[in-house]
Amino acid sequence: MNSLQEKIAQLLHLRERLSRPSESQAAKEELQKVRPEDLAEQVVHIEPEHAAEILQEMEPIQAANVLVEAPTETVRAIVRELPDDVLAAYLDVLPMDDAMDLREELGDDRFESLLNVIPKEDAQEIRRLMAYPEESVGRLMTERFFWVKPEATVKEILADIRIAPDEKYEMVNDLYVLDENEHVIGVTSLRKVLRVPTTTTAAALMKGDVVTVRASEDEESAARLMARYGFYALPVVDDRGKMVGIFTGDDAQAILREAETEDVLAVGAVSGDAEPYMSLSVWQLYKRRFPWLLALFVAETLTGQVMRHYFPSDGAAATAASMMLFLPLILGAGGNSGSQVTTTITRALALGEVVPGDWLRVIRREFATALLVGGSLGLIGFARALFGWNTGMGLSLVVGLALPAIVLWATSVGSLLPIAAKRLKIDPAVMSAPFITTFVDATGLIIYFEIALRILPKS
Amino acid sequence: MNSLQEKIAQLLHLRERLSRPSESQAAKEELQKVRPEDLAEQVVHIEPEHAAEILQEMEPIQAANVLVEAPTETVRAIVRELPDDVLAAYLDVLPMDDAMDLREELGDDRFESLLNVIPKEDAQEIRRLMAYPEESVGRLMTERFFWVKPEATVKEILADIRIAPDEKYEMVNDLYVLDENEHVIGVTSLRKVLRVPTTTTAAALMKGDVVTVRASEDEESAARLMARYGFYALPVVDDRGKMVGIFTGDDAQAILREAETEDVLAVGAVSGDAEPYMSLSVWQLYKRRFPWLLALFVAETLTGQVMRHYFPSDGAAATAASMMLFLPLILGAGGNSGSQVTTTITRALALGEVVPGDWLRVIRREFATALLVGGSLGLIGFARALFGWNTGMGLSLVVGLALPAIVLWATSVGSLLPIAAKRLKIDPAVMSAPFITTFVDATGLIIYFEIALRILPKS
Repeated sequence: MNSLQEKIAQLLHLRERLSRPSESQAAKEELQKVRPEDLAEQVVHIEPEHAAEILQEMEPIQAANVLVEAPTETVRAIVRELPDDVLAAYLDVLPMDDAMDLREELGDDRFESLLNVIPKEDAQEIRRLMAYPEESVGRLMTERFFWVKPEATVKEILADIRIAPDEKYEMVNDLYVLDENEHVIGVTSLRKVLRVPTTTTAAALMKGDVVTVRASEDEESAARLMARYGFYALPVVDDRGKMVGIFTGDDAQAILREAETEDVLAVGAVSGDAEPYMSLSVWQLYKRRFPWLLALFVAETLTGQVMRHYFPSDGAAATAASMMLFLPLILGAGGNSGSQVTTTITRALALGEVVPGDWLRVIRREFATALLVGGSLGLIGFARALFGWNTGMGLSLVVGLALPAIVLWATSVGSLLPIAAKRLKIDPAVMSAPFITTFVDATGLIIYFEIALRILPKS
Repeated sequence: MNSLQEKIAQLLHLRERLSRPSESQAAKEELQKVRPEDLAEQVVHIEPEHAAEILQEMEPIQAANVLVEAPTETVRAIVRELPDDVLAAYLDVLPMDDAMDLREELGDDRFESLLNVIPKEDAQEIRRLMAYPEESVGRLMTERFFWVKPEATVKEILADIRIAPDEKYEMVNDLYVLDENEHVIGVTSLRKVLRVPTTTTAAALMKGDVVTVRASEDEESAARLMARYGFYALPVVDDRGKMVGIFTGDDAQAILREAETEDVLAVGAVSGDAEPYMSLSVWQLYKRRFPWLLALFVAETLTGQVMRHYFPSDGAAATAASMMLFLPLILGAGGNSGSQVTTTITRALALGEVVPGDWLRVIRREFATALLVGGSLGLIGFARALFGWNTGMGLSLVVGLALPAIVLWATSVGSLLPIAAKRLKIDPAVMSAPFITTFVDATGLIIYFEIALRILPKS
């Protein structure tokens, strides 16, 4: 039995114990020890109302972090089950950039009404961040950074650190030195401050030539900049060069991870944001895959045109020749849908979103999606053959039936082979898109011809 | 003009100025301001002996970091131009895990002889790390972490930080609390230490339940663990639970970035380690791509077998029918080689290893690689057709010529389309593998038929 499934079972058991007065205290204490990142992974697999019950038994900061880490669709379902005062408490304890992130899941209206309940200062900060464009650094930065004047001495800096309010200290390891215009003129670190005489000034300690990013800059390029230099935080400046916040490494890493996932999926012709596989509905899977498949399908009809040009289908082997015309179209649809699935599943396996024990759930989802995708392509293919190319009813029917059959087959192969590879301790990435395409070419052909043999009159 | 090319030109100009006595001092000062990560990117594009000259004008720590950041093949060429005493100085100033990383580029023999020159303590540490298995956390950790006993007071801790030697402080933001067996029982941070009365003990400050990794654990899974919890460092323990080092965020990020790249390439059926595109020779590109193409090619001959089964090629339209047999084989080879290239180039563009201005250099490399790949496949295809399937000489020749032509075409399209997309500010990932495959299906067909029309006798 795999460990994620075990953990989910444990979590559901914990929920039962929470409801029994004699055990609830012990269960609560156990719950407190679970890390938000782990819980976030588990709540995807349980009922939203159960997840909401569990969250309400936790410390607000811990529960809020579960929501920050969990996938969008899961959070959307859970917050529907949570009362406003609980959500307001979550927004209050979260760092502002994380609080703002919950806006998408809460919906604009509910988020706005919650902003009126939380402390005014926090609400104002959130509104300031929201004024920056989507996917810009400004949306993700924190305004709570630690800065000193160049003439400040180590003694003054240490005293400052000691008395400043707690939330000022999201990231105190880097100390920024700002001039009178609030421009960054240098940076130093806490450890350096601790190892020099207390009369040393910040100006004497600091390193100049600081790399900064603009608040309006694209988050992905800022994250790449940070990764490139191996920094853990970058100062963020406004258009006039005034420092307005810091962009921290954890946000940068999350952005890069999502960007990588989107890149991998794009290679396999799946569009859309990086959402964990299991949190997407069959309909959402369909929407991510079908547009690309359709575009490729239409493009592949060109292949048929080219073949018609070289081999006008009349004369002796007419049926065979016109069957051939549809070959690239049908094999292409199978190969492309197989590539999409294998890319998606391989990525989900690499990120640990899917484990081999999930195979039955995966195949059920994929089967449903393949019926939608294959059915749509089949209808279009049938119509195209019958009315577009004036193929006879028989062959048009063969095309219309072969398409869903091959898509179903390619999807099953494309989803199960990576999972089987993972279970056999082979790197699932070996089941690459070209591998699946080639496999489907050979086997899909058999499906196409066998359907034809049963429907077309023997010539 | 793009900025990487400008920077390379500037660097070469700087090198000239370094050699002129009147300007060398100013040039040296300018050089000192360049970040090692930027230089590492630029030295890929200049002659190794020029790069070596420039490095020797730099501070050892700065020069050594350029070598740490630059791609393997580039470093291998540069170190051949550097004398032993310079390299020994580099090994001396680098953190031990980075120093050990240079072993691959220096070669075992030269690395061993350098170990005898550097300070004995450093050499011993490197030998200890080298005893861990390849790709394990032990190889990447640093032994220089800061730890305290549970009964230590804040006053003692601060005094410790003040007097300890500099190299103990690679990562002092996290303070580990170890018991008498050197097991990690808690962790606290420098900022917490600074905000409590000086009589507070480490035991009172620390957070227990610390996430650790084993030194023998696989580096990628440890890096994923760190990313999952958003930590900046993880304590590393040996098999008995004794803390032996820390695994830091910069190493973890580098590992994840490489793993992602390998995943992306694998989706496009390119095997091998994550090496920057421009640092690979044509022969290396061939070696990464050909084995997969060959395997897929052999698999695709199955398609031909299936078609032969359903359509024995004799009778009236014999030529047309036997031409069809090779269709999936030829289109498959084109589609697969196109997928490989487009995946590789798209990834290189995403990482900034290739910029649109490089298009001419890219196409030159891809053309040479395609000649090798296509030529190999063409020979095999020709032999397979002539001797394996007893196709006539004419059609065998068509197959043997169409294969390299289509591979050349697919490779050109697969490399130029993502670059063109990037220049037009479209996301290059849109040029996905299925897109290229479909495009090559339609256009490759024309190449195949046109070659056939010129070689085969008219029927």
